[in-house]
Amino acid sequence: MTKPNSAYSELLQNFEKVGHINAAQATLFWESRTYMPQGGAPTRGKVLSTLTGVAAEAMADPRMGDLLSRAEDEEAGSLEDWEAANLREMRRRWQHETAIPVALASRIAEHNSVAQSVWDKARAENDFAAFAPTLQQSWDNACKVAAIKSDAFGVAPYDAMLDEFEPGLTTAAVDPIFDDLASFLPDILQQILAKQAQGPEILPLKGPFPEERQLALSRKLAAMIGFDFHHGRIDSTVHPFASGVPGDVRITTRFEPDDLTAGIMATIHETGHAMYEAGLPADWAFQPVGEARGMALHESQSLLMEMQASRSAEFLPVLFGMMRDEFGDGSEAWSDTNLLAIYRKVGPSFIRVYADEVTYPLHVILRYRIERMVVEGEIKANDLPAVWRDLMVELVGVAPPNDSEGCLQDVHWAAGLLGYFPTYSIGAVTAAQLYAAAREQDPAIDASLARGDFSALVGWTRANVHSQASRFVSSNEVVEAATGRPLSTEAFKQHLTRRYLEE
Amino acid sequence: MTKPNSAYSELLQNFEKVGHINAAQATLFWESRTYMPQGGAPTRGKVLSTLTGVAAEAMADPRMGDLLSRAEDEEAGSLEDWEAANLREMRRRWQHETAIPVALASRIAEHNSVAQSVWDKARAENDFAAFAPTLQQSWDNACKVAAIKSDAFGVAPYDAMLDEFEPGLTTAAVDPIFDDLASFLPDILQQILAKQAQGPEILPLKGPFPEERQLALSRKLAAMIGFDFHHGRIDSTVHPFASGVPGDVRITTRFEPDDLTAGIMATIHETGHAMYEAGLPADWAFQPVGEARGMALHESQSLLMEMQASRSAEFLPVLFGMMRDEFGDGSEAWSDTNLLAIYRKVGPSFIRVYADEVTYPLHVILRYRIERMVVEGEIKANDLPAVWRDLMVELVGVAPPNDSEGCLQDVHWAAGLLGYFPTYSIGAVTAAQLYAAAREQDPAIDASLARGDFSALVGWTRANVHSQASRFVSSNEVVEAATGRPLSTEAFKQHLTRRYLEE
Repeated sequence: MTKPNSAYSELLQNFEKVGHINAAQATLFWESRTYMPQGGAPTRGKVLSTLTGVAAEAMADPRMGDLLSRAEDEEAGSLEDWEAANLREMRRRWQHETAIPVALASRIAEHNSVAQSVWDKARAENDFAAFAPTLQQSWDNACKVAAIKSDAFGVAPYDAMLDEFEPGLTTAAVDPIFDDLASFLPDILQQILAKQAQGPEILPLKGPFPEERQLALSRKLAAMIGFDFHHGRIDSTVHPFASGVPGDVRITTRFEPDDLTAGIMATIHETGHAMYEAGLPADWAFQPVGEARGMALHESQSLLMEMQASRSAEFLPVLFGMMRDEFGDGSEAWSDTNLLAIYRKVGPSFIRVYADEVTYPLHVILRYRIERMVVEGEIKANDLPAVWRDLMVELVGVAPPNDSEGCLQDVHWAAGLLGYFPTYSIGAVTAAQLYAAAREQDPAIDASLARGDFSALVGWTRANVHSQASRFVSSNEVVEAATGRPLSTEAFKQHLTRRYLEE
Repeated sequence: MTKPNSAYSELLQNFEKVGHINAAQATLFWESRTYMPQGGAPTRGKVLSTLTGVAAEAMADPRMGDLLSRAEDEEAGSLEDWEAANLREMRRRWQHETAIPVALASRIAEHNSVAQSVWDKARAENDFAAFAPTLQQSWDNACKVAAIKSDAFGVAPYDAMLDEFEPGLTTAAVDPIFDDLASFLPDILQQILAKQAQGPEILPLKGPFPEERQLALSRKLAAMIGFDFHHGRIDSTVHPFASGVPGDVRITTRFEPDDLTAGIMATIHETGHAMYEAGLPADWAFQPVGEARGMALHESQSLLMEMQASRSAEFLPVLFGMMRDEFGDGSEAWSDTNLLAIYRKVGPSFIRVYADEVTYPLHVILRYRIERMVVEGEIKANDLPAVWRDLMVELVGVAPPNDSEGCLQDVHWAAGLLGYFPTYSIGAVTAAQLYAAAREQDPAIDASLARGDFSALVGWTRANVHSQASRFVSSNEVVEAATGRPLSTEAFKQHLTRRYLEE
């Protein structure tokens, strides 16, 4: 039990206040991407920036460091497990938030907001040269922050970047996984391409598929997975995301009038994220221990739904039936065989976000390698287009026809995010390992998915992942507790082999 | 020019921060009434309450009083007009925000949130006795706050209540207006009823009128008035309101499937509020001087659109045409004559919010008289049903059949709002005086309204009311500057006489 006037109880209050402000920001951000009229953007930007400042001020309060030390030194023994974990996470959060001088942080925030529009224009006009100086500044900023954290926390600079998005993730953990994938994937890709070349021609699904009806189907699918509309919504946006505050989770998705599967799978992906947020323990709401563990584990929850469960041989027939019921025209294109071929089509491409699950990690590994070179000072922004092309040929096997479809395709670096990309594929590898363990531990999962019933699977992820929130010190510990072994590529490789070469 | 390191410039920053937080609250409140899933309510409540606390903390910062005194004593001479007005409004806001001890304010906030659900249930069950103790507490709270402000500001307690919603409004100003209306309205009501009894029977408009199409018509009307959808939205809600932050104004409205005029007029009413918010000077955004002057003046802007302009003999034919285009069935019910009779129907009723413009002020005067008695200690909550019935008979001429349609109909007192009701009718009187002055000063207004063109009228209100924001010390000064004379009932009485007895 927490004593009412303890340092820990005061910390609880302070972090709850910050948690409420972060919740306000999350809802206002969601609103800015869904319902805000365009002309509201300048005010919204100011409001969000002030709220960031208010939260930062609360964290920078000189009393916070004292409270943390007092709680750690004098009260740790009387704390329950989850409280001790919360105290550890409070310390972590406080260290990160206060490590960077406020003046530097706000200079960087200012640069980032300009950088994104420079990038936007450069990409639209395929003009890398116009973006290069801005990109160099973004990289320099990220390196400066990493250097400060590296000194402060005694970790390597790139590990400090990784840690920002996935606490405890290091190059020592990423390297063996990515090296293994970099050697495995190009080979299996060739085998899959050879196999698929022998299949019948894929018949396209004829649209248009009206947004209203795609949204209705998406809502049905989300409800089937277990999304609770009393505590959440689904809306349309341009770049889909999910965001959650305690008891209120928002999914946004996007529908292409001529691409039915894109919208459906985007919804299922975001529903996976949303289920994680919805499954965080209500009792730990607004506290650091109550938050999702990291971005890689978050991505594993979206990919577990999108790539593992929903594209499984068990569930796909259910999905195909729902697609036919809503949109089918009785033609051969809507047969299970053709729909399966559409869903299983694999091939090299230029754009990461359109990549299939076999080639996707190669796009990520490319970015990871480049980020490592940036941090090591081995390349400058001007070198990027050439380095990108060479790595694309080496890893994916194709060279982009231009920079817009090459090194200008992602917003991340313009947004100041270095160390983020790896979480996508660590997430994919994690999803495979979690899904395999879930099916092993609960053999009823396959049969229930074949009936369109996700409750067994969601029950497992809720118990083993969602409800754990940030109780464990790292995602790897969550994975190890849930699957009985540390994260490895084994399940992911088996998954791809089975799905694309054996099924 | 503001000097960069002056006390005033520091105040600007502090108030801007509070303005941003208030803007966050406004958007989050709007969202809670439009898109928030029901299950999100507990978190939203906590988030809003934390933001209230953050804003209150910023106001209570001990430096604030010093900064205000320094700016007033040492810098007032170097300020521009609007800056001096801003400094005056800063002082006013600071006095109000810091007058009430935080502990009392939060006890009251807690009581109010419970009181509203007690009221809700009591009204649904027509059980005044169940509400009486809660109401007494709400009244006591309001009286306690008024007593504190009365001491602090040297004004009468009820004037302190009025001042909360309409700065500078006093019983000395309200009494002659309400006394005059209380003697004028019952008489004219009888004359109107006698005249209308001789008219042909009113044919009802046959619904249902689908919400989607009512919303489309409402959007057309709002656009016609000048509402800018690049800087705003219209959505459905249960209790319509308008709210604005700089550059982003939201209208909410409500549609009854069987009552077409209710939804249309609610939209026009809220559009009037929205135009005021949208017309506040962008350069004064987030500062006290940049806010709407008061609730009575705000109401005058909604009623100027709803009651004066939109129901004018000039505009109604345009409106009738639009209604027919969307919903008309060619029958006699949709003729100009019948639609006019619907729009001009007057009569005593029990419920304030459904009252016509002739009887509405009588409902308000009743509440004003009761509030005065409460503050004078002349009645207790238990006396309310009897007092209410007697005053209804005296003023409106009918006795409510039960308390739900009597003294339980309004949420205001349960929400802790005493001194608010008068603003509705001061607003109506103000609307009439402003509209008369506008037509006098710009004779083109009538002809343009007859073409469905509101630009001349809105140009006048923007110049004379909206753009003034809180530059003047009171709404009465705004009215006097705009119309050349202090507020009086003259224009309102002429308006009713002309519309209901002469036109």
